Amino acid sequence: MKQLQEKIMQEGKVLSDQVLKVDSFLNHQIDPPLMKAVGEEFAERFKEDGITKILSIESSGIAPAMMTGLVLGVPAIFARKRKSLTMSDHLFTADVHSFTKNETNEISVSKDFLKKGDKILVIDDFLANGQAVLGLLDIVEQAEAELVGVGIVIEKGFQPGGTMIREKGIRVESLAILESLEDGKVEFREEGTSL
Amino acid sequence: MKQLQEKIMQEGKVLSDQVLKVDSFLNHQIDPPLMKAVGEEFAERFKEDGITKILSIESSGIAPAMMTGLVLGVPAIFARKRKSLTMSDHLFTADVHSFTKNETNEISVSKDFLKKGDKILVIDDFLANGQAVLGLLDIVEQAEAELVGVGIVIEKGFQPGGTMIREKGIRVESLAILESLEDGKVEFREEGTSL
Repeated sequence: MKQLQEKIMQEGKVLSDQVLKVDSFLNHQIDPPLMKAVGEEFAERFKEDGITKILSIESSGIAPAMMTGLVLGVPAIFARKRKSLTMSDHLFTADVHSFTKNETNEISVSKDFLKKGDKILVIDDFLANGQAVLGLLDIVEQAEAELVGVGIVIEKGFQPGGTMIREKGIRVESLAILESLEDGKVEFREEGTSL
Repeated sequence: MKQLQEKIMQEGKVLSDQVLKVDSFLNHQIDPPLMKAVGEEFAERFKEDGITKILSIESSGIAPAMMTGLVLGVPAIFARKRKSLTMSDHLFTADVHSFTKNETNEISVSKDFLKKGDKILVIDDFLANGQAVLGLLDIVEQAEAELVGVGIVIEKGFQPGGTMIREKGIRVESLAILESLEDGKVEFREEGTSL
């Protein structure tokens, strides 16, 4: 997605070979028109698939998930990273390990909002080691819902998550794939390049 | 806001005299068209005020904040509830106590995104005791930005936050004000009722 790649080139900060900071438009400050375009792009790619729900995870997945849901005309659910007092044991849960933070969080989704027969599009901001997506897939499975695919705003192509998820036969649509962050420079994988 | 009140009546669950659960459209599952309408309503109420940034807080503030930013044509920032590894000490921070969870979190906003001269609209999902809004106001003050007002999706009129914030001379626009949740029933404060 050209508009997203341009934004990454303009505002993304390469902190190391592994870390791209996109706090100015995705992870802390949000650029609403860009998120609208991201939602339209995901909706275009999955419009023939009969999606009934978007499933994402707090916090940075919420903006792209909601915008996709708006265009597709379906609700967007965000998994919680820990239980809140107004949620009961009526939950699907999964453990998600963050290599960046070196901690494991429980994520949870109310059983009220994911049902057998739902056709789910999972959306997240980043795909790196794929642990968050695996947790969401686990929850989709527990709900006996159908996973249609995964939409990622920025995939770190040099980390193993994308390959791991695709090798399960799951369709992954990433709007920008980082090939490398070496020497402080962002290089994108060309669209259409085999993965 | 009539559409929001109707949604609360249809889907809100009164868990006690103090707690209304709106997980089906605001706090866990999001209803995108309703959030769009909420954003349009906030934008309408503050359209003459020269807002330059929306400031909100993760996670449930993100959806209404982004939609308001989309209509007003300005970015939406969400304060983080704890520091992440990709954020440095280049932060404005404030402590926010949650009476519901009986815990205090530090919230933070990068100094990159709030500047002197910014005209800030603070948006949040709920206003109860007002602690989250106070934390956000503290951060606006640290940034020497100008607070234009506060937009709240659902205000618990029977808790002290709304009165406390208004008594500081701050404009608070709540799209639905709960007068009472007694006897398991939602009662709204009539619009135009003096507060």
